[in-house]
Amino acid sequence: MENDLISNIRIVLVGTTHPGNIGATARAMKTMGLSRLYLVQPKRFPCAEATARASGADDILVAAQVCETLPEALSGAGLVIATTARERTLSWPLMEPRQMANTLITQAAGNECAIVFGREHSGLSNQELHFCHAAVTIPSADDYSSLNLAAAVQIIAYEIRLAWMRSGEAEVCKTPAPLATSEQMESFYTHLEQTMMAIDFFNPEKPKQLLRRLRRLFNRAGLEHTEVQILRGLLTAVQKTANKSAKKPG
Amino acid sequence: MENDLISNIRIVLVGTTHPGNIGATARAMKTMGLSRLYLVQPKRFPCAEATARASGADDILVAAQVCETLPEALSGAGLVIATTARERTLSWPLMEPRQMANTLITQAAGNECAIVFGREHSGLSNQELHFCHAAVTIPSADDYSSLNLAAAVQIIAYEIRLAWMRSGEAEVCKTPAPLATSEQMESFYTHLEQTMMAIDFFNPEKPKQLLRRLRRLFNRAGLEHTEVQILRGLLTAVQKTANKSAKKPG
Repeated sequence: MENDLISNIRIVLVGTTHPGNIGATARAMKTMGLSRLYLVQPKRFPCAEATARASGADDILVAAQVCETLPEALSGAGLVIATTARERTLSWPLMEPRQMANTLITQAAGNECAIVFGREHSGLSNQELHFCHAAVTIPSADDYSSLNLAAAVQIIAYEIRLAWMRSGEAEVCKTPAPLATSEQMESFYTHLEQTMMAIDFFNPEKPKQLLRRLRRLFNRAGLEHTEVQILRGLLTAVQKTANKSAKKPG
Repeated sequence: MENDLISNIRIVLVGTTHPGNIGATARAMKTMGLSRLYLVQPKRFPCAEATARASGADDILVAAQVCETLPEALSGAGLVIATTARERTLSWPLMEPRQMANTLITQAAGNECAIVFGREHSGLSNQELHFCHAAVTIPSADDYSSLNLAAAVQIIAYEIRLAWMRSGEAEVCKTPAPLATSEQMESFYTHLEQTMMAIDFFNPEKPKQLLRRLRRLFNRAGLEHTEVQILRGLLTAVQKTANKSAKKPG
């Protein structure tokens, strides 16, 4: 039971500067029963300092996946949640950790899920946020919100564990519909962009902005696999119509 | 308001071995709005390592009270809560962090309160536990409960902050972006249906099903007013393309 849910959840650290934080993250994860760690371009890893701070959770470091890009670390994930500082202006739902953990545990029954943590000082870039479906913010003091990276992982992992414990109490866990994976979503966005070009739908002044807004909308919705299939069918029909229109003599 | 409650709460570390943990504790406290730190016989303090790990929360270290005995650190406290590992056989109520935080915040309105954290490896002695009124245990994995000291403080401080937020007046809600009205959504769905017909996109066996699924998807997303405008612009562009295609001689 624990494995079914918890093994579908991965922690992704992006661009971590201090190896000590990677070790402390492994320890924080393991105390709460999480085990899958992904590292996107860590500054130094493997590293003795990381192992020292892991303090018995070094099996998680050994098994950690080191990736070149965020999409690589998100491969196969149907639900991707970004952690962000409070001030950030975001368009998708900003959840509290408790609410996030409930959502996550529900989806993890049938989907791969990822929680993404940004760099110690600068967090996640806007481009990186575009791969995420929702965001979680840890409440903090107004005058000092400088939560340590591993401390943030600890709080999130703790809430996940509580949600998991609650889910075990519930008698029946419904299996959620399979979500579209990160790769399927990216293919869909490429298809959407091509279709928009085929019908001359864009804002000439800010050509990328429309697509960004559409990404935000669809990411927020958390598309199911079959929904992406329907939408792509729709796009293909639009493209056929556009081709027909283009090929005919004007 | 924050001060009234939060300033009545102190964090007490007993016999801490690693000064880095003291610094990380200060940081964990400050992110959650706590400021009063008491240290009972710390092995090394003050210490550069503690200051480094405090990372901007060094004001808490400067103001920390170093005490010879636990009773000295508990002076004036009306409610004293011990943190303990799960296995411990205790005679008083063993609370979860959430429950503990609610009790604490209720009492802190009129009482000095303390939460006591033991040594990194051996926790609190039985004699020390006798000064406490209740105990809190942080849930952890069955096979690895080795929570770092500062990580434990972080979780407890986080729960205290959540309880404090609940106790206070509802926070001022940021003005959300205007959502699309029901009427706007219905017009959008009509537009979507017309467009799907124009490009011959439907399932002849179950013509209504596709539209129902798309409704579900967009309703779930909770579309903003401007998002509906973008989507309708997109639909209009598709219709124009379809018209052009239809009007040209085949």
